Amino acid sequence: MNTNRQWLLSKRPQGIVGKDNFEYTETPIPAPEEGQVLVRNLFLSFDPTQRGWMEDRESYLPPVGLGDPMRAGSIGQVADSMHPDFAKGDIVQTTGGWQDFTLSSPNVGPMGLTKVPEGIPPEMMLSVLGVTGLTAYFGLLDLGEPKEGETVLVSGAAGATGSVAGQIAKLKGCRVVGIAGGPEKCKWLVEEAGFDDAIDYKSEDVNARIGETCPNKVDVFFDNVGGDILEAALNHINLKARVVLCGGISGYNATAPIPGPSNIMNLVIMRARMEGFIVIDYMPRAGEAIADMMGWIQAGQLKYQVDMQEGFDNIPDTLNRLFTGKNIGKQLLKIADPS
Amino acid sequence: MNTNRQWLLSKRPQGIVGKDNFEYTETPIPAPEEGQVLVRNLFLSFDPTQRGWMEDRESYLPPVGLGDPMRAGSIGQVADSMHPDFAKGDIVQTTGGWQDFTLSSPNVGPMGLTKVPEGIPPEMMLSVLGVTGLTAYFGLLDLGEPKEGETVLVSGAAGATGSVAGQIAKLKGCRVVGIAGGPEKCKWLVEEAGFDDAIDYKSEDVNARIGETCPNKVDVFFDNVGGDILEAALNHINLKARVVLCGGISGYNATAPIPGPSNIMNLVIMRARMEGFIVIDYMPRAGEAIADMMGWIQAGQLKYQVDMQEGFDNIPDTLNRLFTGKNIGKQLLKIADPS
Repeated sequence: MNTNRQWLLSKRPQGIVGKDNFEYTETPIPAPEEGQVLVRNLFLSFDPTQRGWMEDRESYLPPVGLGDPMRAGSIGQVADSMHPDFAKGDIVQTTGGWQDFTLSSPNVGPMGLTKVPEGIPPEMMLSVLGVTGLTAYFGLLDLGEPKEGETVLVSGAAGATGSVAGQIAKLKGCRVVGIAGGPEKCKWLVEEAGFDDAIDYKSEDVNARIGETCPNKVDVFFDNVGGDILEAALNHINLKARVVLCGGISGYNATAPIPGPSNIMNLVIMRARMEGFIVIDYMPRAGEAIADMMGWIQAGQLKYQVDMQEGFDNIPDTLNRLFTGKNIGKQLLKIADPS
Repeated sequence: MNTNRQWLLSKRPQGIVGKDNFEYTETPIPAPEEGQVLVRNLFLSFDPTQRGWMEDRESYLPPVGLGDPMRAGSIGQVADSMHPDFAKGDIVQTTGGWQDFTLSSPNVGPMGLTKVPEGIPPEMMLSVLGVTGLTAYFGLLDLGEPKEGETVLVSGAAGATGSVAGQIAKLKGCRVVGIAGGPEKCKWLVEEAGFDDAIDYKSEDVNARIGETCPNKVDVFFDNVGGDILEAALNHINLKARVVLCGGISGYNATAPIPGPSNIMNLVIMRARMEGFIVIDYMPRAGEAIADMMGWIQAGQLKYQVDMQEGFDNIPDTLNRLFTGKNIGKQLLKIADPS
């Protein structure tokens, strides 16, 4: 392989993202300078938040520039190193983007460059032990503060983050109800992930079903969806409830601003709070989360699912699986095998 | 005086409240039983939250029953006492309602029955040292957690609660900007209450003016209004901002649910929180607030305004002054002089 295949962001999206927002190109493989590492990407991570990175607006990270490779988390292998801590062949995690090769170094980009510990498979490092798992861990525990016996409601519950958040809430002794799309996802939540109940937003009245499945009201709502589902949940919050705003995928492809919930005043009546967070802020504490989660996984108490697609050509379409609800669990795509 | 004049809630409101929601009646003056006190109301408090009490829905207090006197905070004088701690002639605070006489006792109703300390005028007890002042104190300090040098934005800033919240923020060393309706209120905020700047929502572009007057963004937004003003403020929140939801007067007379802000996701991007509270929860800590505020008033550091109406017949119309923005400062109405 002599070229670096890339998918560049060529047009900012209006509404749903399509292949026409990206342009395929091939460029020379870059050479690392002093302190840099050349990483060959093996697995790409797909996350709803990438949709926001495509917009030309201020956010927690700068927008991806037009003509730049689309930003994405990745696991790769060191192909060439000019950094003393990394050697050719090392398996590493970085923000490799939609391309075969990327130049990286430990202090550059939102995730820097870190070695993947021996024995941890890449799909685990990019899911339950990666950004999505850490998001669930810190969002639920730090913002949600679930207490034994409380009720925790999770939207996007079959997703990579929601499914982990709900299972951690179970481990903390809570009643846990998940909202997901379709019978297959709901079945997995109850039968595999151990949720107490599941609500299929595609076929059920979410507001009524929250009332039925959360008879003691909702103490923690871990929200990945926003929109109508956030409004329905706010109808059922308990006194001193915590609404953890993790994401709002229902609005990410909107072409015009979507009104917020009309019942925000319930936060006043119930003395409740709604709080947002970005997992990047918690990276200095990643170790404690990974240690806890590794223990739960080894004890069989924390299940996760990976939806692994393949092929460089399929990169743009794979992003849309998140927004059409096709993925079950963490969406990844493999572009190469390690050498 | 041999009869007890009353304004009863006769019809639940649709939209703006009118005289036709109430019915005037005269009933015999009740006699206190063991443990009760007969209070003759002198001053009634008018508060936006009363609009919510008229609705037939669950809230932090039960709805006022149809055919019952409208609920209202009051200062009165003991006319007859069957309680050992209260003597005829004592000036007391209770939830007297829209009537001349009410039976009260220390542990009944949202505010119970307490003696007004000697030397404190009733209009001070029902405003800056009363529920509205305590709301400002605990909402700003406990939920807002303002730090020296931060920027605090207040909506409904010329109101009884907003004006106190803003002044406390100034005392804590913050830059304080108020949003109010009309040049007279804005002038008072800057020239008398010591706000750094004021935005007239009736004649100015609130979103643009927040940007201009809060160049370091908004660390604390103390919101009494909701609706478009909440949405405008959310556009300008700083990292780790605290949005204190005190009230949402813009929606209290709505006949259909009003959409919430479309930019709630800014709470995620800015790692910010939005939290509601009810001052009743803080009553056990009222002493510390009153001590602080009394000190600030005596030092000339805390100004307050009272809009005093008069006359029993004017009670229903006086409530509407809050919703049409006619009042400057705390809305009260005097129905009798102490004997």
